[in-house]
Amino acid sequence: MDIEHYMQSVGQRARAASRAMARADSGAKNTALKAIAAALRRESAALLAANAEDVAAARAAGLEPAMLDRLTLTAQGVAKMAEGVEQVATLADPIGEINDMKYRPSGIQVGRMRVPLGVIGIIYEARPNVTADAAALCLKSGNAAILRGGSEAIRCNRAIAALVQEGLAAAGLPADAVQVIDTTDRAAVGHLITMREYVDVIVPRGGKGLISRLLAEARVPMIQHLDGNCHVYLEEEADPNKALKIIENAKTQRYGTCNTTESLLVDRSVAAMLLPPIAQMLTHKGVEIRGCAETCALVANAVPASEDDYYAEFLAPVISLKVVADIDEAIAHINQYSSHHTDAIVTDNHPKAMRFLREVDSASVMINASTRFADGFEYGLGAEIGISTDKIHARGPVGLNGLTCEKWIVLGDGHVRA
Amino acid sequence: MDIEHYMQSVGQRARAASRAMARADSGAKNTALKAIAAALRRESAALLAANAEDVAAARAAGLEPAMLDRLTLTAQGVAKMAEGVEQVATLADPIGEINDMKYRPSGIQVGRMRVPLGVIGIIYEARPNVTADAAALCLKSGNAAILRGGSEAIRCNRAIAALVQEGLAAAGLPADAVQVIDTTDRAAVGHLITMREYVDVIVPRGGKGLISRLLAEARVPMIQHLDGNCHVYLEEEADPNKALKIIENAKTQRYGTCNTTESLLVDRSVAAMLLPPIAQMLTHKGVEIRGCAETCALVANAVPASEDDYYAEFLAPVISLKVVADIDEAIAHINQYSSHHTDAIVTDNHPKAMRFLREVDSASVMINASTRFADGFEYGLGAEIGISTDKIHARGPVGLNGLTCEKWIVLGDGHVRA
Repeated sequence: MDIEHYMQSVGQRARAASRAMARADSGAKNTALKAIAAALRRESAALLAANAEDVAAARAAGLEPAMLDRLTLTAQGVAKMAEGVEQVATLADPIGEINDMKYRPSGIQVGRMRVPLGVIGIIYEARPNVTADAAALCLKSGNAAILRGGSEAIRCNRAIAALVQEGLAAAGLPADAVQVIDTTDRAAVGHLITMREYVDVIVPRGGKGLISRLLAEARVPMIQHLDGNCHVYLEEEADPNKALKIIENAKTQRYGTCNTTESLLVDRSVAAMLLPPIAQMLTHKGVEIRGCAETCALVANAVPASEDDYYAEFLAPVISLKVVADIDEAIAHINQYSSHHTDAIVTDNHPKAMRFLREVDSASVMINASTRFADGFEYGLGAEIGISTDKIHARGPVGLNGLTCEKWIVLGDGHVRA
Repeated sequence: MDIEHYMQSVGQRARAASRAMARADSGAKNTALKAIAAALRRESAALLAANAEDVAAARAAGLEPAMLDRLTLTAQGVAKMAEGVEQVATLADPIGEINDMKYRPSGIQVGRMRVPLGVIGIIYEARPNVTADAAALCLKSGNAAILRGGSEAIRCNRAIAALVQEGLAAAGLPADAVQVIDTTDRAAVGHLITMREYVDVIVPRGGKGLISRLLAEARVPMIQHLDGNCHVYLEEEADPNKALKIIENAKTQRYGTCNTTESLLVDRSVAAMLLPPIAQMLTHKGVEIRGCAETCALVANAVPASEDDYYAEFLAPVISLKVVADIDEAIAHINQYSSHHTDAIVTDNHPKAMRFLREVDSASVMINASTRFADGFEYGLGAEIGISTDKIHARGPVGLNGLTCEKWIVLGDGHVRA
């Protein structure tokens, strides 16, 4: 297979399909989504069989257990996939929405119309459910999608893609609106991320290795999802009960998610009061505490934190802890060490809460709430394609609107510029 | 000078200053802008002297007349610069604006807050007025700016930067919030466009050569301004008088601007009626007409258009012309050949106007209005830093909001995720 030629053809077909998708009405898009959900349910056994082949091949190739786990699809998983696609059909269609139309002194009316981005390339790991999720979100937002899943999942991805294309065709939409790259050759990614004429944005959903490669090589703009080194800061006027409850939830509800708190800051004036019960709760749950010298003096089982620990996304029962002088030091520390994903303050002091809200430079900034809330569903987006740690275009949880842009529209009646 | 070390230091200082700018209140920012305007007026003679040195050196080096013209500053030019800076002070401050706060079923309130992007790198040609303009817009939007103007203007840019920094200091803001790169070494640009840790976005304002270089080398996201191959499409139900008036304005008001119309499409059914008076007007104004075979049959002095002519941004008294079958062909042609800057339809037919509005994939799409309206001032943005032909982040004229982003804010009272 000539990869370059193949990818050019994928790109051309996606661009052509994107024109039809941009003008597709909400009814057709929802019909397609429902048809896809029905097809997924109908072909559940076939999907599980394709997945079983993927899993067998991956196991034979020595894929590590955690990745095998993500790769494995169950009957329940297929049902959830179908449900997710159906749920996207219930979301409001963002396309065509017109905002802020205003008359100008020249007599023209100027405003903005929400339109699809065009062609979206999504690169992800060997998780078959992402294929259906991403296809549904791109379809509903009027985009064409080029999907590149982890090569270990290619049989199942092919099978899902065929059902998605069946659903598109059933609604009179172009099957090319969702294409799964049908090769495991890594060179395909190299083409996907540099075909500016055919791809409008790349959404990488994967580990740091993938992101680093894309940052070095991509020529297409990206909506990237980096790591989540999230902080909770206990200010002098933090309510001790809220503080304990928030830390427990933010750190220990799930250790492996990007919105889990990895670092705790506490004001010096209240450290001796607040830290012991929190440390006790964390220790009871098996969380290792790595702290500064003051922390170690207050918490018997804390071990000294290194500079790297303050930058770390542990994704594990480990937390870094630091005693700070005041809100100035807390904000400066967060803006330096945070991955700019999600950071929270616990305080009953209004001016300090508002300062934190304004000055912390992260995608989500919270007052008296657990960082675990940083999520498209919790925010009311209905679904999310990822959480952006970029500042450009989309920040934080990215829902349907993040896959769109606004163009300017001008209405006149023969108007010309003076 | 060790360029890498110098640029790292510029970047670090910009990042530090951006923190202070993000929390600066509107009053301080406006005070700084007014102080800068006053300083520009006070030092008009000194600026003109620095500019005269730049012009003399550029002339000796053989700079071409058009560029010498752009480089040259007059007393009136300095006054206009000061006026422009003062005008930015009168614009509403976008920073801190909170939108769409809503209660969620979990009990938290979620919304978005408008915040600065952080550090903005602006790369432009030897036009001293851009230094003051860009500084003012970045300052008002709470960003730090790193400005890299054309090397021929460096003496004048240094002088302007000193006055900007004086104004910042007078308002208690960090002087490092606006830095002019103080070297003409081109390697500085290479560092600026790759320092992801210190620069959040690059705004290039220059020719295609600059953009191509940045597209190939930049690692920092860009808000780019490409060429303007703008179209006017005369649909079957175009009012002949509106059509003539709009073409005259769109094509002949100014030949060198990016919102000038470069290509005219006309429906076959009305070509014989509409084209002769339009061709007569264009010919009278000295505009060369390059057309398809049908155009040439209808317009005596038209010359055959090449395929390249339909892609061209002439920036000259030349227009390409094509007869099309219907709106489908017109939209397909525009989506293929347009630079996605600005395209207009002339028609009194509502459904066709609405189809054009929705389906043409350009930053500005217009009904019965001249493409010359595509401009930040005409749109009511108050000022513009450029016109984006990108789809990501900002599309079309970019005003203060284009230099900001929205972060998510969450208000709770001890809330945790279920």
